[in-house]
Amino acid sequence: MGGAIRLLLAYQGTRYQGWQVQPGQRCVQSALERAFERISGGACVRMKAAGRTDAGVHAAGQVVFFKNPSRHDPATIQKALNAVLPEDITVLFAEAAPADFDPRRAATGKWYRYLIYNEHIRPSFHQELCWHVRERLDVEAMQRAAEGLLGQHDFSAFRASGCTARHPLRVLDRIVGRPRRPWVVLDVWGRSFLKQMVRNIVGTLVEVGRGRWQPERVREILEGRDRTLAGRTAPACGLMLRRVYLSEDGYRHDLSPSTGAWAVDPLDVFAGVLDDPWGMRGGGG
Amino acid sequence: MGGAIRLLLAYQGTRYQGWQVQPGQRCVQSALERAFERISGGACVRMKAAGRTDAGVHAAGQVVFFKNPSRHDPATIQKALNAVLPEDITVLFAEAAPADFDPRRAATGKWYRYLIYNEHIRPSFHQELCWHVRERLDVEAMQRAAEGLLGQHDFSAFRASGCTARHPLRVLDRIVGRPRRPWVVLDVWGRSFLKQMVRNIVGTLVEVGRGRWQPERVREILEGRDRTLAGRTAPACGLMLRRVYLSEDGYRHDLSPSTGAWAVDPLDVFAGVLDDPWGMRGGGG
Repeated sequence: MGGAIRLLLAYQGTRYQGWQVQPGQRCVQSALERAFERISGGACVRMKAAGRTDAGVHAAGQVVFFKNPSRHDPATIQKALNAVLPEDITVLFAEAAPADFDPRRAATGKWYRYLIYNEHIRPSFHQELCWHVRERLDVEAMQRAAEGLLGQHDFSAFRASGCTARHPLRVLDRIVGRPRRPWVVLDVWGRSFLKQMVRNIVGTLVEVGRGRWQPERVREILEGRDRTLAGRTAPACGLMLRRVYLSEDGYRHDLSPSTGAWAVDPLDVFAGVLDDPWGMRGGGG
Repeated sequence: MGGAIRLLLAYQGTRYQGWQVQPGQRCVQSALERAFERISGGACVRMKAAGRTDAGVHAAGQVVFFKNPSRHDPATIQKALNAVLPEDITVLFAEAAPADFDPRRAATGKWYRYLIYNEHIRPSFHQELCWHVRERLDVEAMQRAAEGLLGQHDFSAFRASGCTARHPLRVLDRIVGRPRRPWVVLDVWGRSFLKQMVRNIVGTLVEVGRGRWQPERVREILEGRDRTLAGRTAPACGLMLRRVYLSEDGYRHDLSPSTGAWAVDPLDVFAGVLDDPWGMRGGGG
């Protein structure tokens, strides 16, 4: 009838048990499905996302696909969904998609952003969007440590115990840590990720940033393939799925820090998203 | 005993009926006084602020004074207060003050910041810290309109009906509007303000920014001295008391936009505060 639709979605994960439907739990997927039911007079749809986000994790570029049982066009559906969705979930963009579009398969890469509030005094305004680390972090040391993780590796050392992936091999393309007082922003690019992999990497890099571990130790942890050697899992509240790269876009993680694409506010999580919702333009990030 | 202390305070005003104690209402002052009671084993103090903020208004540089009945030094008190205060109130700094310090009298100037989220789509992450205005604002026109308000005037047109000030004359020193997509940031400097004056000015400037009113009209509204002619009161959630200038600092509102002091993130409300808590250094803003 109405073909298929893909949505670009933002949400603050604080009040949700992650993307995926779990019995008896608040989750983003069912909030979105219920919203669609309301605007379509009861039509049930199954929403598929490019990546499951864990409980408490945010998104500012999640890609969601569904088969549209209604006659309404994407723009109308976007407007109607935003009118009934809870305030902490927003459809940033909607467009027609091929009927066989599979957001998980189409996702050739993902960009995660981790936000650390790095002052002795706690933050007063963005507690739900960051991890508060009191000790001043040595971001250069963290960056050096991160270099040891790039490329294809067995990431068992950074894999949560409940991870259902078939194998622990993943490709990590780029990690960029930037101090931007009072924030430290960590951006991570890869094709796909194991469960809690980004948060386990961040937790480990923070041990380096605090000066407790030498940067070289992170490579040793990777090679040890033992989760118990790595740092603790960084809290979910600091993590955001910033962008999903789709196969048609190409996958651009290799931007120069000098381009405007990098000069984004740490908190300005929408920067560029609304101008270029699918990352189709040159900037990419 | 312990002399007197002044605090630099940040708070998110969302859950409070403003600074001042009102019977049966949640307010920042009583939260702070109760916190002091807890850390001092029941000592009652009266906390005085440089400026009352209204219900829902935030602060990232409120100055608070009290007579310290305890033996603890300012740094200890700061730490202890932060340990028991609600998460949305933070003592940024504490130091000894003269016993006769009066924060209202000592305040020679104030800087308010108003944050507008200016996208058609609603914000997903900072709803409680901004006003969402969908129509694209012409910030240059708003700036031109604002120039007509500078200097000493009878600000009756921008005065809330419940205002208890003895007269409506105020001096407005500077207004700077900057587009920083997706945000529009309005910074306002003055010696002191009438009740809801900043929010009434913002509400009026936004009518200009939307193109409904010509910039010249704002000067006519000022001269009309009639509140009903001005725009509606901008919502409290977008307003923040960004800094209180104390007499000993001098009062610097005349910074050049090219200096680093202006190059702050709209959301990075702490920028500079922790480095230079009382605005003593050259930067000032």
